[in-house]
Amino acid sequence: MYDICVVGFGAIGTLYSLVLERSGKARVTAVCRSNYRVVVDHGVDIVSDKFGQESAWRPYRVVSTPEEAADRDYEFIVCCFKALPDIIPTPALIQPLLNKSKAFVLLQNGIGIESDLQEASPHATIISGCCWIDTTAVDNGRKVLHSSLEILTLGYHRSQALHETNQLALDRFVELLRQGNSTPEPTSNIDAERWRKILWNASFSTLCTLSRAPVSDLLRKDVISSTMPVIRGLMTEVIRVARAAGIDNNELPDAAVDKTIELTVEKYGEDPTGVKQPEYFKPSMTVDLDARRPMEVEVIVGGIIRRARKLDVPTPQLDLVYASLRVLQLAILEDVPRVRSGPV
Amino acid sequence: MYDICVVGFGAIGTLYSLVLERSGKARVTAVCRSNYRVVVDHGVDIVSDKFGQESAWRPYRVVSTPEEAADRDYEFIVCCFKALPDIIPTPALIQPLLNKSKAFVLLQNGIGIESDLQEASPHATIISGCCWIDTTAVDNGRKVLHSSLEILTLGYHRSQALHETNQLALDRFVELLRQGNSTPEPTSNIDAERWRKILWNASFSTLCTLSRAPVSDLLRKDVISSTMPVIRGLMTEVIRVARAAGIDNNELPDAAVDKTIELTVEKYGEDPTGVKQPEYFKPSMTVDLDARRPMEVEVIVGGIIRRARKLDVPTPQLDLVYASLRVLQLAILEDVPRVRSGPV
Repeated sequence: MYDICVVGFGAIGTLYSLVLERSGKARVTAVCRSNYRVVVDHGVDIVSDKFGQESAWRPYRVVSTPEEAADRDYEFIVCCFKALPDIIPTPALIQPLLNKSKAFVLLQNGIGIESDLQEASPHATIISGCCWIDTTAVDNGRKVLHSSLEILTLGYHRSQALHETNQLALDRFVELLRQGNSTPEPTSNIDAERWRKILWNASFSTLCTLSRAPVSDLLRKDVISSTMPVIRGLMTEVIRVARAAGIDNNELPDAAVDKTIELTVEKYGEDPTGVKQPEYFKPSMTVDLDARRPMEVEVIVGGIIRRARKLDVPTPQLDLVYASLRVLQLAILEDVPRVRSGPV
Repeated sequence: MYDICVVGFGAIGTLYSLVLERSGKARVTAVCRSNYRVVVDHGVDIVSDKFGQESAWRPYRVVSTPEEAADRDYEFIVCCFKALPDIIPTPALIQPLLNKSKAFVLLQNGIGIESDLQEASPHATIISGCCWIDTTAVDNGRKVLHSSLEILTLGYHRSQALHETNQLALDRFVELLRQGNSTPEPTSNIDAERWRKILWNASFSTLCTLSRAPVSDLLRKDVISSTMPVIRGLMTEVIRVARAAGIDNNELPDAAVDKTIELTVEKYGEDPTGVKQPEYFKPSMTVDLDARRPMEVEVIVGGIIRRARKLDVPTPQLDLVYASLRVLQLAILEDVPRVRSGPV
């Protein structure tokens, strides 16, 4: 039986804890932060088209801090919290756990999210994953809703020295997910996958956030002539930075821009016949802003911007988005002590 | 005694009505819209460092619609309402007054605000002015506050055919303002002045609006490294469009970018010694958004964008600002019937 520590027990942390335990080969110590009492007192109701229903589900063990979790070694430490390096970097947040495992898994958004952890644990395997998943925690974390969409692309970050160890860890984690009825997609180039995912987050997510709007509002006929060139412009800048960072056209084709836009318009765009209402969906960054919670500005936009500056790629539109989001984030961070009592 | 009609009786309309009547040579018919009852029942208290105090002041005549005002001819029709062509174009708004005067004065923000009026009244003189003024209506329009800052640059829009008539009208209007103790600055190139003013509005105003922040928040040390290049980038795009539109370096020097930033930082920036608190000021566009009132998106950013497309000047950062503001504006406009009962 593998011991696995899952840090951050929101919708994603809960679902993957369930999957891992369902493998029959792992038991999960969940580090719950804001929802510790809810999980201990009530458990979590899970309603998922893909994974079925669970009532008042709890993992093997629930703790409220990384310190408490640090009483044993783990096969994997899985990070499912929002990545907010402008508040606390990952290595600082999970500091008591740093020497409790040789393998970390980051199920988080962003570009460059592995760097500080790799620096803090140079000999650890760092696997990271891009989740395309439509899940949300409601009712103060007592319930997790999930549709049937769940794609998780996983790979380890490039480190030739640890190649065999890394591959072993990746294989093992993927196997556990499969046995738990998830459908992970291992990849040999997780960096390219991260750039592919950031394509959407850096364009649709950010423009929705500045406009405080659901995705469908950007695609309405009254404004689409203004928004679409901007969405495309932002994506094009992302691709340019990715190219300079060594991701070539085979790994992330230029055509991904059109493809991403096309899929989004299909799902959230106006139906010209007016018969079908577009789906209502706000990106998590927009939801965070609405709720005055810190947004993943630094890992989503900041990571690209820093890479771009280093590689000397101009990114005028991403710069504007980043500047506006940083001002918004600053106001939220200064509100934090006033509106939140638990740990961030 | 000149009859003058002032349409829109907010802070600017009220102050210039006072100035015009104080000339001793004009009487003002004010078309009050949302504040008609307030002005009729209570009058307006004016507290101005420059113009002194007036208690329960009312102009010669107060009406609630352009129709009511159209019972006579006017020497000038002065437009002081917010320019919102996406809701109603100026010629439509003042339609009953269109043939009641040969001279219109636009005390409004924006680029290209004179075009539709000139088209509707091809033989009219159109004077327009850029107000650099620090005034605000409070207490539901019962009180107008004003500091000592009041710079009003005025000129007529280029029309060689009407040159002498235009100049006469401009001289007359300027003379009335002077006699009322204002300090108008006539210019032979009001278009260049409009571009100079839009430099600030298209950069600081819009970035404040997207960030929901006062100007001082953009200049804080935590974010200024991100915001300042963007502010400069937006201004540079504006200058480029102005150049393509025929405004040369003598009329609006490149150095206006540095100068505008410098003045703004001086007034709203952080004092490194921390002794002086920066002044708190939100641009009117930001105030409008906070109050869910329609914003002057079309005349401030739209005007530049349309000119840029026509002249084939790329404006990636203005495009992004415009797209976001249009989505925000759309949501506000759809709210309008729900939150406002009076005319917009």
